[in-house]
Amino acid sequence: MRNVRLPDVTSDAAASPSSRAARVKLAPSLLSCDFTQLGAELNRIVTADYVHVDVMDGLFVPNISFGFPILAAARRASPLFMDVHLMIERPERYLREFAEAGADGMTVHVEATPHIHRAVGMIHELGKRAGVSLNPGTPLEAVRPVLSDVDLVLVMSVNPGFGGQKFIPQSVERIRTVRRWLDELGSAAELEVDGGVTPQNARLLADAGATVLVAGSSVFGPQGPEVGLARLREALA
Amino acid sequence: MRNVRLPDVTSDAAASPSSRAARVKLAPSLLSCDFTQLGAELNRIVTADYVHVDVMDGLFVPNISFGFPILAAARRASPLFMDVHLMIERPERYLREFAEAGADGMTVHVEATPHIHRAVGMIHELGKRAGVSLNPGTPLEAVRPVLSDVDLVLVMSVNPGFGGQKFIPQSVERIRTVRRWLDELGSAAELEVDGGVTPQNARLLADAGATVLVAGSSVFGPQGPEVGLARLREALA
Amino acid sequence: MRNVRLPDVTSDAAASPSSRAARVKLAPSLLSCDFTQLGAELNRIVTADYVHVDVMDGLFVPNISFGFPILAAARRASPLFMDVHLMIERPERYLREFAEAGADGMTVHVEATPHIHRAVGMIHELGKRAGVSLNPGTPLEAVRPVLSDVDLVLVMSVNPGFGGQKFIPQSVERIRTVRRWLDELGSAAELEVDGGVTPQNARLLADAGATVLVAGSSVFGPQGPEVGLARLREALA
Amino acid sequence: MRNVRLPDVTSDAAASPSSRAARVKLAPSLLSCDFTQLGAELNRIVTADYVHVDVMDGLFVPNISFGFPILAAARRASPLFMDVHLMIERPERYLREFAEAGADGMTVHVEATPHIHRAVGMIHELGKRAGVSLNPGTPLEAVRPVLSDVDLVLVMSVNPGFGGQKFIPQSVERIRTVRRWLDELGSAAELEVDGGVTPQNARLLADAGATVLVAGSSVFGPQGPEVGLARLREALA
Amino acid sequence: MRNVRLPDVTSDAAASPSSRAARVKLAPSLLSCDFTQLGAELNRIVTADYVHVDVMDGLFVPNISFGFPILAAARRASPLFMDVHLMIERPERYLREFAEAGADGMTVHVEATPHIHRAVGMIHELGKRAGVSLNPGTPLEAVRPVLSDVDLVLVMSVNPGFGGQKFIPQSVERIRTVRRWLDELGSAAELEVDGGVTPQNARLLADAGATVLVAGSSVFGPQGPEVGLARLREALA
Amino acid sequence: MRNVRLPDVTSDAAASPSSRAARVKLAPSLLSCDFTQLGAELNRIVTADYVHVDVMDGLFVPNISFGFPILAAARRASPLFMDVHLMIERPERYLREFAEAGADGMTVHVEATPHIHRAVGMIHELGKRAGVSLNPGTPLEAVRPVLSDVDLVLVMSVNPGFGGQKFIPQSVERIRTVRRWLDELGSAAELEVDGGVTPQNARLLADAGATVLVAGSSVFGPQGPEVGLARLREALA
Repeated sequence: MRNVRLPDVTSDAAASPSSRAARVKLAPSLLSCDFTQLGAELNRIVTADYVHVDVMDGLFVPNISFGFPILAAARRASPLFMDVHLMIERPERYLREFAEAGADGMTVHVEATPHIHRAVGMIHELGKRAGVSLNPGTPLEAVRPVLSDVDLVLVMSVNPGFGGQKFIPQSVERIRTVRRWLDELGSAAELEVDGGVTPQNARLLADAGATVLVAGSSVFGPQGPEVGLARLREALA
Repeated sequence: MRNVRLPDVTSDAAASPSSRAARVKLAPSLLSCDFTQLGAELNRIVTADYVHVDVMDGLFVPNISFGFPILAAARRASPLFMDVHLMIERPERYLREFAEAGADGMTVHVEATPHIHRAVGMIHELGKRAGVSLNPGTPLEAVRPVLSDVDLVLVMSVNPGFGGQKFIPQSVERIRTVRRWLDELGSAAELEVDGGVTPQNARLLADAGATVLVAGSSVFGPQGPEVGLARLREALA
Repeated sequence: MRNVRLPDVTSDAAASPSSRAARVKLAPSLLSCDFTQLGAELNRIVTADYVHVDVMDGLFVPNISFGFPILAAARRASPLFMDVHLMIERPERYLREFAEAGADGMTVHVEATPHIHRAVGMIHELGKRAGVSLNPGTPLEAVRPVLSDVDLVLVMSVNPGFGGQKFIPQSVERIRTVRRWLDELGSAAELEVDGGVTPQNARLLADAGATVLVAGSSVFGPQGPEVGLARLREALA
Repeated sequence: MRNVRLPDVTSDAAASPSSRAARVKLAPSLLSCDFTQLGAELNRIVTADYVHVDVMDGLFVPNISFGFPILAAARRASPLFMDVHLMIERPERYLREFAEAGADGMTVHVEATPHIHRAVGMIHELGKRAGVSLNPGTPLEAVRPVLSDVDLVLVMSVNPGFGGQKFIPQSVERIRTVRRWLDELGSAAELEVDGGVTPQNARLLADAGATVLVAGSSVFGPQGPEVGLARLREALA
Repeated sequence: MRNVRLPDVTSDAAASPSSRAARVKLAPSLLSCDFTQLGAELNRIVTADYVHVDVMDGLFVPNISFGFPILAAARRASPLFMDVHLMIERPERYLREFAEAGADGMTVHVEATPHIHRAVGMIHELGKRAGVSLNPGTPLEAVRPVLSDVDLVLVMSVNPGFGGQKFIPQSVERIRTVRRWLDELGSAAELEVDGGVTPQNARLLADAGATVLVAGSSVFGPQGPEVGLARLREALA
Repeated sequence: MRNVRLPDVTSDAAASPSSRAARVKLAPSLLSCDFTQLGAELNRIVTADYVHVDVMDGLFVPNISFGFPILAAARRASPLFMDVHLMIERPERYLREFAEAGADGMTVHVEATPHIHRAVGMIHELGKRAGVSLNPGTPLEAVRPVLSDVDLVLVMSVNPGFGGQKFIPQSVERIRTVRRWLDELGSAAELEVDGGVTPQNARLLADAGATVLVAGSSVFGPQGPEVGLARLREALA
C-alpha cells in the first residue's frame, strides 16, 4: 500500500519558481490522440511523464469516452505512468477493474460519490496512487477532508466531458488555494490541472502551484505530439 | 429517412440453405481487437461486412468499453458499415451524437428504455439503420411490437458485457423463432447474432436464420483476423 | 372501493357497430388547450365525456407538462370526469396526492413500475377508477395479468411525451387485440386510445373496439373545441 | 456448480395428487417471526423444509426488511435450507455476499434486472440453487427464457413488500400455467408460492402444482409455529 | 451572450437603505395563482417585475407543478420577465427547451447537478439570465465558485416543493452573507428570496440585501393580486 | 414537537473534563450483536443509554443491514432510547414508518438528500429527536446550516457500511470542530461518534467533545456486552 513513489517537488521549499516550473510533469490526454494508432501515438509521447486517461460513462458527464479495453491497450503500449481520471458515477464500483486493467493512479470526483474517503482508501488498498478531483463549480472545501490522504488533487479548469474547451480563468486562483493548503499540510501530493492548458498559460499554472499539467489538443494537435510537448516544456523552462 | 440500402437476403425465398449461409454477413467486434493499432486492425478486416462497435456504459452492463472517440476513429479508418451496438441506459440520450460520430446503424436494447418504438423512430429520423436487441433472459415477445419497424434484430447469445464468453445453446431456438417471425412479416430485416460465434457453430446459426454473425475472439484471435474471417467464411461456404 | 360507475358498453353484445361507435366517449387532452384560459377552455368542452390530463415528469417521458396545481384548477372549473394519465416514474409515489387533487381516474404505465398490480390496487383503495397504459413498443401481453382488475386500458397510439404527433397505424391492430381480450373476459373496462386521433380515423378506432378517444389538437385546434368535438362526434355517428 | 440436490417431485409422473401434496415443502418466512428471539423461533420450525428469508431494500419494494446480518444469524442457528428471496434492485450486486452470509438458494426478480439470465448463472457459479420470481402483475412469459436454467420459480401471490396480505385469487391459474410449462420441459425445478398462504388454500395450491409453500403469519401466528406448521401439514395430508 | 440588461442596484453604493428597498423587484409566483384563468391573473400583476415560474419534477422536490406548456402560455399572456426556477434533477437536460418555451432567466439548484458551472454557462449560451439557487440546508459556500458568473442568486427561505410555507428565520442571515459576498465581488447580480415572503418581512429582507422578492400567497391571496402587490410595495416604500 | 428531553451536558460550562467524560452516553450498535437472541442481547445492555440501530439499504452504503422489523423487535424488547441511524438514500421516504416502528431519534446523512433541512423538520414534526450525520470525507461545513436545528450531530469515524473497522484518526479534530461550533451556538445537541470506538480511544473522544459513543464490537465482542460496557465506562471514568 502507498508503495507509489511520491514526487519531491515541495521538499525543497527554497527552490526558485523557475526550477519548480521546469520540473512540472506533463500528462498528455488520450482523449485528443488519434485512436486509429494509439500505440504509435503513445510512442511519440514517451518524453511525457504520465498518460492521462479520461474515462467517461455518459452519466456523470455527458460523453462516453472509453474504459477498460483502451486503458489495457495503452498499458501494453507504453511504460509511462497511467493516470486514470474517472469521470463516472460511483467510481467505487470499478476501482478494482481499472487497477487490473493497468491504472497506476486513479482519480475520483468528489461529486460522484458520497464516500470519497472510502474511494481513496480503496485505491490505496489496491496499491495505486489515489487522486481526487473537483469540477469548476464545486467548492474547494469539498476536498479538504481527504487532502492529507490523497497523492494527487486534480483541479478541473474546464467542465469535464469534452476536449478542446477554453481554460476557465478563475481556475488559477483555485490552484493557488489548493497549493497553499497542500503546503500548509506539508503534503507532497501532486497538484494537477486539466482543461485548456496551452503553452500560453502553462507557466502561469506552474507558478500558481500546479505540478502536473494535463494537455490534450496542445499535445495531440496538428503540429504533432513531439512539437506539442516541446512547446509546453519551453514555456515551463 | 429509411434511405439505407436494405439487404436482399429473403427476397429469393427459393434460395437453398447453403447459398443463404454463403451470403451471411460477418461483423468483427472491435471489443476483441488490438486497440494499440485500431487502424491496422480495421485494414485487416476489409473483407468483412460490418464493423461491430460495442458501446458499454458501465450501467446497463457491468463494463465500460468505449464510445464516441473510438467510433469516430474507426469511421475515419474504415469504409465498412459501422454497426453500433448500444449497451447503454436510455440510448435515446445519445443517438444523435453516435450518428454524428459515424454510426451507419444503431442497435438499442429493449431492456434499456421504456420507449423502444421512439428510439427506433429517432434512429430512422437520423437516416440510419435501426436495430433492436435483447438479452438472453428477455422474452422474444419484447421485440414483436417493433418488428415491422426495424432493419435489424440482434439476438444476444451471451450475456452482454464481456468478450470471450461461451455461446448459450438455447439461442439457436431463439434465432429460429425470430427468423420465422421476420419471414411471416415478409421483413427483409437482418437477423444478427452476438456472442460465442465460432467456425464450429457459424453454419448452424446461418441455418437457423441468422444473416449477420458478430465475431470477436474468433476474428481477432492469435491466428490473425484474416485467417479468422476466412475460417468463418469456410464454415459458411 | 370500486365505487365508480362502470360503463355499460359491452353489456349488450348485440349492439350494432354503428351504435357502439355513437356511444364512444371523447376525452379532450388538456395538453393542447390554451392554458391562459383553462377555465374557459373547459367550459367549451362540457359536452365531452372526460377531461384527459397528461401528467409528465421529464423522466419517464422527455417532457415536463404539469401536475397537481393544474389538475386542481381543472377540477374546480369542470364537472367532467378527470381522467389522469400519469406519464411518471413509479407512479405509486403520488397516487394519493393526485386523488386528493381531483382525479376521478388514474392511469399508470406498465413500463413505469415493477408493481403494476399494486398500483392498480392502490388506485382502487383510493376509490378511483384504475387504468393501465402501454407504449407503442411494449408487448400487449404486459397488461394481461391485470386485465381483469382494471377499469380502463389505454393504448398509446403515439410515443408519449408530446402533442400533435401522427397516429401509428399498427395501433389499430393492437386495439383489436385488447378489445378481443376484454370481450373474452367479459370485462366492461374502457378501451382508450391516445395519440393522433382525428375525425378521419375516429370511426376506424371505434370499430376496432375503442370506447374512449383522447383528442388533443383535433379538439383544441384553430377551429375551436366545440367544432372539434362536433366533427369527432359526426365521424362517429 | 449445480451441485445442489434437486427435488424429485416430478420424477414419478404417476404419483397421485394427494401424495404430491403430502410432499409439498413448507418454508416459513422470517418476516413474520419474533425477531427478539430468532434462534428460538428457528428451533421451533425445524420440521419445516426451508427458511424463507425476505430481503427488501426499500427501493425495489416499499419496505426495508433485513439483509446480511440477519441471514448470517439464521444460518448459525438453523440447519435448514436458507431460501433467500431478494426483493432488491439489481441483485447481481450482492449475490456473492449473500452466498457468503449463508444462502443455500437465492431467488431474483425478473423485474429487478435486465440481466436475469446472467443473475441465474452467477448464482449457479456460486454453487447455490437459483430461483426466479415475478410479481403478480408481471406476465408469466417473463420467466420462460430462463425456465430450463432455474432450480425454482417463485410465483408471488401478493404484491411483495409486506407480510399479512391477502392471497390474490388469480395466482392459482398462474401456478397451474408454470406447473404445465415445467412439466413440458421435464424440469424438476421447485414451484414456490409466496403470499397469503393458509391452511385453507394450501391444498388448492399444491393441487395447482406448487411444491413449496411460503408461510408467514400462518406459521408465526398467535398459535405458535409448531401448531402453524402442523395445520399446514394436515391441510396437505 | 450575456446580453441581458443587468440591474443597477449596487452601482450607487451611497444609496440609502430606504431607496434601495424601494427599488426591490417583486416576482409573484405562479404556483399560487388561479390556473383556471392564468391570462387574467397575469394581467393583474403587470405592475410586478418578474413572473416567477416554479417548475417541479416530482423527483428533485416532492411535488409535480408544471413545465413547458404553462410557461409557454404565461409567455404569450404577459410581457414581464419570465423568471424560471427549475426545481428538477439535472436541469442541463432541459435548458434549451425552457429557453424556447419563453424563459428570460433560468435558475438552477446547486444540489441538482454536479455541473453547476456548466449549467450556468449553458444558460448564458442560450442568451438568458443565469441564476443559481440553494436549499435552506445547503451551505452558502456551494454557490461561491459560480458567484462571479451568475446574474442572480436565489436563497430559498422555505424548503422547496410547496407554496404557503412559513419563512425560515435563519434565511435573513444567509441573505446578508450573500449580499456581502456580492458586494465584495462588485457583482450586480440580483439577490432573490423565495418562500414565506410577506408585507411583514419584506422590508427586513430588502434591508438584508435582497433585490428580488418572490411572493406566492402574499400576492395571489384572497385580497387579490393588485392589493397583494400594493401591500408589498408599501412595506418596501 | 421538540418534545424530546434534551441533554444538559453543556449547560454547566464550568464542568471539569473528567466529569463531562463520565457523563458520556454509550450507544451499543445492534449491527454487532448476536441476532439469534436480540432480546437477550438487549437485556444485557440495559445499563447503556441508547440502542444504536444501523439501517443500511445497499444503495447509500454497500451493505444491507436491517430496517423496520428489527427496529420494531428491539423496541418491544428494550426500554432504551432507540437511536436510529439511517444510512439510506432519500431518508425522507421512510421517516414516518421508522417513527411508527419505534424510533426515538432518527439521524439522516447530509450526503443522502438535497433536502437535509426538510428531513430534520419532518423528524421534529413526528415528535422525534433529529440528528444529522456526515461521512469522513464530507466537509463539516455541510452540517452548519442545520446545526441550530438538530438535536444530535453524528460524526462518522469510519466509512459507513460495515462493523469492525478501524477508527480514522482525523475524526478527533472533526469532533473538536463540531464541539466548538455547538458551544458557540449554545446548543445542547448531542455530539455522537460512530466507528472504531474502543476503551483505548473513548476518553480521547469524550475530551474532544463527544457526548455519545457508538460502540459495536467493543460492546458485543467475545467478552460479552456487560464487560464491554464496563470497560468503556471505566475508560471514561
